[in-house]
Order: sequence, then structure tokens, then C-alpha cells
Amino acid sequence: MQTSEATPVFILVEPQMGENIGAACRVMGNFGISELRIVKPRDGWPNPKAVSMATGSPVLDNAQVFETLEEAVADCQLLFASTAQPRNMVKPAFTARAGMAEIRGHIEAGQRVGVLFGAEKSGLPNAAITLSNAIITLPVDRSFSSLNLSMAVGVFAHEWRAGDPAPAEFKPLDERAPEQEMTAFYNHLEEELERAGFFYPPEKTPLMMQNLINAFARGGLTQQEVRTLRGVIKALAIGRGKARIERD
Amino acid sequence: MQTSEATPVFILVEPQMGENIGAACRVMGNFGISELRIVKPRDGWPNPKAVSMATGSPVLDNAQVFETLEEAVADCQLLFASTAQPRNMVKPAFTARAGMAEIRGHIEAGQRVGVLFGAEKSGLPNAAITLSNAIITLPVDRSFSSLNLSMAVGVFAHEWRAGDPAPAEFKPLDERAPEQEMTAFYNHLEEELERAGFFYPPEKTPLMMQNLINAFARGGLTQQEVRTLRGVIKALAIGRGKARIERD
Repeated sequence: MQTSEATPVFILVEPQMGENIGAACRVMGNFGISELRIVKPRDGWPNPKAVSMATGSPVLDNAQVFETLEEAVADCQLLFASTAQPRNMVKPAFTARAGMAEIRGHIEAGQRVGVLFGAEKSGLPNAAITLSNAIITLPVDRSFSSLNLSMAVGVFAHEWRAGDPAPAEFKPLDERAPEQEMTAFYNHLEEELERAGFFYPPEKTPLMMQNLINAFARGGLTQQEVRTLRGVIKALAIGRGKARIERD
Repeated sequence: MQTSEATPVFILVEPQMGENIGAACRVMGNFGISELRIVKPRDGWPNPKAVSMATGSPVLDNAQVFETLEEAVADCQLLFASTAQPRNMVKPAFTARAGMAEIRGHIEAGQRVGVLFGAEKSGLPNAAITLSNAIITLPVDRSFSSLNLSMAVGVFAHEWRAGDPAPAEFKPLDERAPEQEMTAFYNHLEEELERAGFFYPPEKTPLMMQNLINAFARGGLTQQEVRTLRGVIKALAIGRGKARIERD
């Protein structure tokens, strides 16, 4: 479903290590960014280390290799240069979050947007930043600011998706017990505690019940959990060893 | 400045590859998350591959190693389990963005929050997810959902900072020329174009100027750029080769 949607084009400019190209392919695949272009990879192409680190990512097979930056960006209508180092250029600078929102707006308006990533050692050449319409950067700790190349790709790739909801497969909390079952559970608990002589002095009963109910209401309970906890109360109320005897 | 702030504790549960532990240390350092705990690393500790991939990250030296998960999380008041696979547990599930905002709220209220990451092959054991208060997950493409461990750490680490502004070193667009200089530039351009006979038919002049002004106003210009462009107009207006002659 994600793959049919238009996404930014990620462009690695003269990357050095095949491992990083492969890891970039993997994480782009994780977040459904399908189009990778590579300008003059140092160790040629194809690269076995890239294949190994891509772990079967479909992005690797579709990657296009170019001899020059100009060819790689020819059809892009907007370019965002990722860089950790300000280059003394007067250009709008976005964080990953703000920049990806900006890019999404352009893409939804039908524009083709490229995001440029520089080489491991030196980052993007000044000429690539000059061509770009804007800078996109990360809020790094200035005392330890050098990100691994594939990590930078990963962070931007995730940011493209960061506003999506959690995958639907995660069990939502929609199995919560309805309030009438919670009330019946609280009443059962209060009755048995009353019988056991737990509430002392007796005028404290409402406050003590309020505290207990708060503890259960905070996380909520499913119907199954309510049934289990009522079994727990019953077993404890019968007295030590007797639940087992009754069951036998 | 970032390091004095309270941050979540990242906990790797039985990680296998030293490379991933090192890469996790590096990216945690990039985003100023200082506290790493490691439960039973497969290849022991210290691990030379971790040292190499950490590229000097201060997070590596401060990492603590534990024999059991229980010891590693003993002082945490809230646990978030990162997992790509739903485990059929009824538990709130947050995306990285929503989850990190949630965690920030708890940390600002003085709570100690742990984020759990599982092993490369199998992810977190069910027991670790059971202990946790919530699940934190990523909006991955379900057809290619397996993230590299250090990449997952990186994405969550960045998300902790994603709301921060771009580093102050990036040159803001505050050197824009004031409107009076823009107006003088537009007037200069119009005058020279008028002289050159560019406006034809003459009644189209206002519309043609409007289009030209829009092109310059869109990106804005600095004072230096206005001066340069006025030099360009002058040179072109003098005629071919003559600017050089005048300068000589």
C-alpha cells in the first residue's frame, strides 16, 4: 500500500562504503521510500557489501547509478541538501521533521523532490548545496555531531512516515471491560474485604476503596482480566489451601 | 548543553552483534541520549567491534552491563518495549513520535523511563514486553519490516530530539535586503529593460514586471545579492564586451 504513494527521491552523492549504501537500501525499504539514486559510488557498482547489508531490500535492485550529480537530479523540481555543517550559505534550513513536512506538501502538489546525502568523510560538496533550494539538518549534539551515512538516511526515511499511525496489527485497547463489569468487580472486592475485616477503622472504607479502584482504573482491564481477578479474590477469600481442595 | 537534561534510558536486551551495539552508542551520542544499559551481550563485554563502530562516542564508556533484565530495569518507573511484531498483548501501542512525546511528559514529571530493544534475530522476549507499560513501534512497510537494531535505536534517539529547532549555526535568512532596496532594484531593472525595448506591446509592461518581481520575491535576496544583480543589469545594459572595456 505504501509503495504506490509518491515519495521523495534519495540521492547519495559519491558514497564511499558499500555497507552504508546497503544499509541505506534496507532502511529505505523499511519505510517504503523506493527510489534511490547513487552518484559515482567510490567502489563501483554493483557492490557485494551493499547487497549483503541490504538484506533483500527491493530498493537495491531499483537503485540507479549516475556519473554526475547533474544527471542524477535532472528531473527534480526541488532539491533539499542534508548537511550537519552550515556552509555559510543563505538558504532556508529545516529540521528533519519540519523539512519532511515541507517536502510532503511539495510532493502532494505533484512536484518531484530530491534529498541529497554527501559522502561519509566530507559530506556534500558545496556545489551540491548551492544547487539546492533548502538545507535539511538534524538537531545533533554539537560535541558529537557526525552521523553514520546510512543512519542519516534512516532518520530522514523514518521522518517521512513519522506521522503515520501505529500499524493496525497492534492490539488496540478495545477489549476493555465495560463499566458495569468493572463495577461488579469492585463490589465483589469490597464485599470480600469487608468480610475479611480489611477496612479499619470502618469510616475509612470509602477512601480505601477509592484508592484501590484508582489503581485498577488507571490501566483499565479487559473482560478476561476481570474474570481472572474475580477468581483471584475468590481463591484468596476461601483461605489458604482451600481453593485447591474445593477444585479437587 | 543537551547532556545535563534528563533523557530516557536505552536498554539493549541480549544484543548479538558488537557492530550494532557500537553503532547504537554512536547515534545515541549524536542525539545526546547518554545512558545505555546492555543485558547479557552475546559476545561478552568489552567488545572491540562495538568500540570501532562507536567512533569515540561517550555513550560507550558509560554503558553498563547487566546479567538479567530485572537488574537492568530495577530503578525504572516506566518501561516502553520497542517491537515491530504485535504479540497479542493488550497494551497501549505508540508510534515513535507519539511515544517519545509521551515519554518526555513522564521524564519532565521526574520519572525514570526505560526503552527496551530486543536482539537482532528474535526481538524482545515476551517476558520483557509483559513487564512493560506500553509498546513503542515504527510505521514500517509490512512487506519489509525488519529494521537493523542500531537503526531502530537511531530512529528513536532522533525522535527524542525531533522537535528541537535546527542548530543555531545555520545561517538564517535574516540578511534579506530591506524592501526599499528590493524596490530600487526592480526600478533599475524596469528602466534598463524599457531602454532596451524589452516591453512589447508597451501596455503589457505592468504584467511583465509583475512576473519578474514574483520570480525574485519568491526566494528573497540578500543585500549582497541585490548589489551583484544590479551589477549584472548594468553590465548587460552597456552591451557586449563594453563592461570589460569600461573597467580597464
